Amino acid sequence: MAGNTYGTVFRVMTFGESHGAAVGAVVDGCPAGLDLDVKDIQKYLDRRKPGQSRFTTARQEADEVRILSGVFEGRTLGTPIALLIPNEDQRSKDYSDIKDVYRPGHADFCFDKKYGLRDYRGGGRSSGRETAGRVAAGAVALKLLSALDIEVTAFARQIGNIRVPEEKTDIRESRENPLCLPDKESYEKASEYLDTLRKEGNSAGGIIECVVRGLSAGLGEPVFDKLDAELAKAIMSIGSVKGFEMGDGFRSAESNGRENNDPFIIKDGKIIKESNHSGGTLGGISDGSPLVFRAAVKPTPSISLPQKTVSSSGKERVIEIKGRHDPVIVPRAVVVVEAMTGIVLADLYLRNILSKEDKV
Amino acid sequence: MAGNTYGTVFRVMTFGESHGAAVGAVVDGCPAGLDLDVKDIQKYLDRRKPGQSRFTTARQEADEVRILSGVFEGRTLGTPIALLIPNEDQRSKDYSDIKDVYRPGHADFCFDKKYGLRDYRGGGRSSGRETAGRVAAGAVALKLLSALDIEVTAFARQIGNIRVPEEKTDIRESRENPLCLPDKESYEKASEYLDTLRKEGNSAGGIIECVVRGLSAGLGEPVFDKLDAELAKAIMSIGSVKGFEMGDGFRSAESNGRENNDPFIIKDGKIIKESNHSGGTLGGISDGSPLVFRAAVKPTPSISLPQKTVSSSGKERVIEIKGRHDPVIVPRAVVVVEAMTGIVLADLYLRNILSKEDKV
Amino acid sequence: MAGNTYGTVFRVMTFGESHGAAVGAVVDGCPAGLDLDVKDIQKYLDRRKPGQSRFTTARQEADEVRILSGVFEGRTLGTPIALLIPNEDQRSKDYSDIKDVYRPGHADFCFDKKYGLRDYRGGGRSSGRETAGRVAAGAVALKLLSALDIEVTAFARQIGNIRVPEEKTDIRESRENPLCLPDKESYEKASEYLDTLRKEGNSAGGIIECVVRGLSAGLGEPVFDKLDAELAKAIMSIGSVKGFEMGDGFRSAESNGRENNDPFIIKDGKIIKESNHSGGTLGGISDGSPLVFRAAVKPTPSISLPQKTVSSSGKERVIEIKGRHDPVIVPRAVVVVEAMTGIVLADLYLRNILSKEDKV
Amino acid sequence: MAGNTYGTVFRVMTFGESHGAAVGAVVDGCPAGLDLDVKDIQKYLDRRKPGQSRFTTARQEADEVRILSGVFEGRTLGTPIALLIPNEDQRSKDYSDIKDVYRPGHADFCFDKKYGLRDYRGGGRSSGRETAGRVAAGAVALKLLSALDIEVTAFARQIGNIRVPEEKTDIRESRENPLCLPDKESYEKASEYLDTLRKEGNSAGGIIECVVRGLSAGLGEPVFDKLDAELAKAIMSIGSVKGFEMGDGFRSAESNGRENNDPFIIKDGKIIKESNHSGGTLGGISDGSPLVFRAAVKPTPSISLPQKTVSSSGKERVIEIKGRHDPVIVPRAVVVVEAMTGIVLADLYLRNILSKEDKV
Repeated sequence: MAGNTYGTVFRVMTFGESHGAAVGAVVDGCPAGLDLDVKDIQKYLDRRKPGQSRFTTARQEADEVRILSGVFEGRTLGTPIALLIPNEDQRSKDYSDIKDVYRPGHADFCFDKKYGLRDYRGGGRSSGRETAGRVAAGAVALKLLSALDIEVTAFARQIGNIRVPEEKTDIRESRENPLCLPDKESYEKASEYLDTLRKEGNSAGGIIECVVRGLSAGLGEPVFDKLDAELAKAIMSIGSVKGFEMGDGFRSAESNGRENNDPFIIKDGKIIKESNHSGGTLGGISDGSPLVFRAAVKPTPSISLPQKTVSSSGKERVIEIKGRHDPVIVPRAVVVVEAMTGIVLADLYLRNILSKEDKV
Repeated sequence: MAGNTYGTVFRVMTFGESHGAAVGAVVDGCPAGLDLDVKDIQKYLDRRKPGQSRFTTARQEADEVRILSGVFEGRTLGTPIALLIPNEDQRSKDYSDIKDVYRPGHADFCFDKKYGLRDYRGGGRSSGRETAGRVAAGAVALKLLSALDIEVTAFARQIGNIRVPEEKTDIRESRENPLCLPDKESYEKASEYLDTLRKEGNSAGGIIECVVRGLSAGLGEPVFDKLDAELAKAIMSIGSVKGFEMGDGFRSAESNGRENNDPFIIKDGKIIKESNHSGGTLGGISDGSPLVFRAAVKPTPSISLPQKTVSSSGKERVIEIKGRHDPVIVPRAVVVVEAMTGIVLADLYLRNILSKEDKV
Repeated sequence: MAGNTYGTVFRVMTFGESHGAAVGAVVDGCPAGLDLDVKDIQKYLDRRKPGQSRFTTARQEADEVRILSGVFEGRTLGTPIALLIPNEDQRSKDYSDIKDVYRPGHADFCFDKKYGLRDYRGGGRSSGRETAGRVAAGAVALKLLSALDIEVTAFARQIGNIRVPEEKTDIRESRENPLCLPDKESYEKASEYLDTLRKEGNSAGGIIECVVRGLSAGLGEPVFDKLDAELAKAIMSIGSVKGFEMGDGFRSAESNGRENNDPFIIKDGKIIKESNHSGGTLGGISDGSPLVFRAAVKPTPSISLPQKTVSSSGKERVIEIKGRHDPVIVPRAVVVVEAMTGIVLADLYLRNILSKEDKV
Repeated sequence: MAGNTYGTVFRVMTFGESHGAAVGAVVDGCPAGLDLDVKDIQKYLDRRKPGQSRFTTARQEADEVRILSGVFEGRTLGTPIALLIPNEDQRSKDYSDIKDVYRPGHADFCFDKKYGLRDYRGGGRSSGRETAGRVAAGAVALKLLSALDIEVTAFARQIGNIRVPEEKTDIRESRENPLCLPDKESYEKASEYLDTLRKEGNSAGGIIECVVRGLSAGLGEPVFDKLDAELAKAIMSIGSVKGFEMGDGFRSAESNGRENNDPFIIKDGKIIKESNHSGGTLGGISDGSPLVFRAAVKPTPSISLPQKTVSSSGKERVIEIKGRHDPVIVPRAVVVVEAMTGIVLADLYLRNILSKEDKV
């Protein structure tokens, strides 16, 4: 029983294989009357596009999105918004040599086990290209949120072991360099590190951080669909993400109650938290502080160094993966994290409206 | 729109407030014909029960579960299995002083913002007591899995900053000491640390690790309901969990592709992975290796030290939380992690059956 | 994959077998802050209770409901509302002779085929007793609707071939006689007819009509969850219902466009329909006219006349069903129709709130 | 909260407005490994295509479907199957005069009330054109069913008041005449009747019957997702359907238990029902007999006779609907009924696999 849909009210389904006719998404449940133009979507897809620096694959994908339905005279109709991104630069031949062999760190083996067959061209459905649909759908969510003054910003907190310290973090800088690092010095170090790896045919991982501002208290649905839980699922569903933490996250395990609890205070007549160890949620519900969370991204599994593996017919083999691959996934995944966060928040925002009888 | 149900095929709904008439769960979608006795459930609830050591609250809760439906002559009927755990030791008075004040680190403030009212007695729905329903339902899932030779085991990897090293890990030991630490020496250090905190009215956090053996390749539903994503959601939905990682998790961010990729090899005529940095999933699908994941648990927010906070009417206050509280949540949460893992796997196991046409 | 839950926002799950420990329901998604007392629920259950006339089974069922969760100090909490109705008068022995034989017109055979086993006592899960849970949950929905001035009324339009003509319909009368017929003369004819059938050990069917007043335009979610479609599903899910029609229903098949179309007019400054052939929906959305729909109910399958059947081991047999049975299901099903209608409307009412951006 | 998806395991979402860029569907949950060719889908779309006789609109729609994803080398991948049908003959100008006026019998008024705006061109989302997506998706379901030797056949049982008697029914004939009536004589009478109506600018209704052969016992999920209930929902979700009945349906209301109960007998060593008043279900589960059900279709609401109505600004108006319209919806809806039935059965077939533990 397939799992290609995320969300309950604001629902997103993606479809498409890397080297099929198209990838895309359908957004169902977006309220009617929202201003929406194709440009609102294209600008996010452009940030995901490869070939923009030496740190991303040289593949050329135009990634031009078409709105097939659900928008009329510049406004959403309340009907499904189908978004289509045709596949273009399909060098399927690059992949013919991996038709019968399982790439380490990739989904090939598991897809064969699960489905009995797979579209081996470019990883098929398990390709990072699937995230183009997420980004397109997420752009709709982010448009809805921006109308509510909610702002979602992700960036690279760490590449390899080069971590940008909290105090040096400058989010604007993260929009200026191709690694999305919010600190120029760190960017330079990371560039060197990646160049070294790239030359030896190796790859790197990193950590993406996301901050959400403007969220009021109340989003998140106990007991299973808590805000933390939904974010964790959405972010961990992005390929290569192997860890998720909210606020102090794993560091809070070493803290103690006195230090970790965020005191409530009154400021400008409003109840706020004095600190934000929790990362913006309490009991799985947004608490009015900024959301802060991080995702650990593993090194790109496609490397050109020789690796031990087996063929689908059960023979041991050595593989060297050719083709064009990102030496680090982090920079292109930043906008995917924003997109998934947007989808989660749009969904929980709409769900929360129905919590209180006096609102209904 | 509420979120009290987890799962799509094997579905679990919990209900109940801490000091209401009862807590419980309904399991829908368990196949007919499974042997099930109330003892299969009670044994898990007994592991969750408080009052079993000085490291858990002194509250007495019998936590005796009744099966109200769905089982006939010792076998499941394929109909909903309703599980009821009456609430007994309800010292509601302990909580009357927190009726109008928001406890730091707790859900009180957010519940008021979200719902406009809350059952303040013992935290109501946001109480850890809700997890009794999860454990009861999880026991049904774990019974189903054990019939398939799938074994789920959780334990404490870390309390405060006392971490059990990989090489000293002895899972049997974790069943012997009240902190569920898989190493006696670490247990003794952690006991001392907790005693110190307890005396000053403070609390600790920690890390729970869970290992699943016997799982075949194929579980997990791309692209959103990946095995990692579903586990992340289920585990992050447990109160106080602030981080989740699969396999090498956050460490993989600092690794490189050559080291992090797990080579495939042939062993005894079977394709297996030579290492398990991935923690048992590739592309969001189980890969046949053991599942390994960890959850970061924040320090118990209920501490008796004075804390700054505000009242529901917006006045700054100082609060000292009385009553009986766990100095560390980790030991009682271990069985909750097993329960939620069981529910995730039972659900994904059943879902996977429908993946291939030759099985249907 | 089980189907014991109805609804998407206002969700109802029922549980329980006829002769198990209890039947009941859990309502999830009811907004917080609704006034709710156990009496609001009990009054509907009392209308469903058997033993109130010679036209219903002589079984005595107290059917006293308990609210286990979700309500605090007389108001809903926004958390699951668990409703429990213990089973009492369980003369299980009456059913031991049908343990191994399939009653014609009943679910016995199909349950065995589907699940491989069944609780044969009183029909188990397929018993009409399951509807007690629906009525309890429906009462919560109807309470929510009544706060919005939406009124749901069902009655018997027809028993056997005795049909109350439109012009003689007096809904108040339907509350006065035990057959729920809205016309005294028809009631007397139907009584005679039923007495004759009862004496020969036979049974009758009939038609239930339901009218909903106070509904504004806009409820129903194209294209699959249309108001008509959701009502059809909910009503057809009641045991023994074999047909459903909206407005003119099957008669509209013989009409023509000029007669069947309802003209729009202006009345008191409001757009209304001049007639209501459509039964209150257009394009699957409520149109502001009263909802009118009907359900065809088959004759009670439990009859004491000898019938041909087979045993579970595949032997031909003759069965005479003893025990206490309703000679016609219609009167007790009237409140079940109201309950299911309430659940459908509460759900679609809440869903509709999220249709327009200016409301969200 | 939108309702554009049907099904739980075999899930179908349709998208698209009548005069937008395209209509289409995405099928999620189709098992991997099913042979599927675009021709399997096109042949059903061709049966739905207008312009094939004087009884359907003269609009020309090529309705050529493209498979965008989910199929590789002629077999399904287990991933979403996106099906695209571009819109071509879009004479949008035909509709500009109904931009501001509510057509009687149409969804215009309700869409405005619900969404605050609508795509008025050709009815937008509420157009019968949306069913092209259903037919395309249904074709995939029917392909899956045909591999299981399950055969779904619908035809016109009645046009206006010309009803084909049971004993004259010849299903092959229904494939020969453009009204899908299974009796030549009835077809001739109905043709005359429709010609008369068409000349006066009026329209007719009718009844569609559907028969399913080859279904084993066990499909349908008590208590809410019963086979009857799911069929009722799916069929009533087709525009213009105002009634649904299973087996004897509304006639069973006038029957009695002795006559209406279908006796079980043994034939060729198998348990079967001697008659089929139930229409193939008992307790909401398929009983091994053929499924038989009927849908009442209202007269086409688009008629060229003058009708009273109001404008969106609240002025009374007289409207004469120009353009090209079907004088009766029944013939083109026959294949839509087959498609929706296929989707329901594919879904319930897959769901039923998970009912018993020994299958899982």
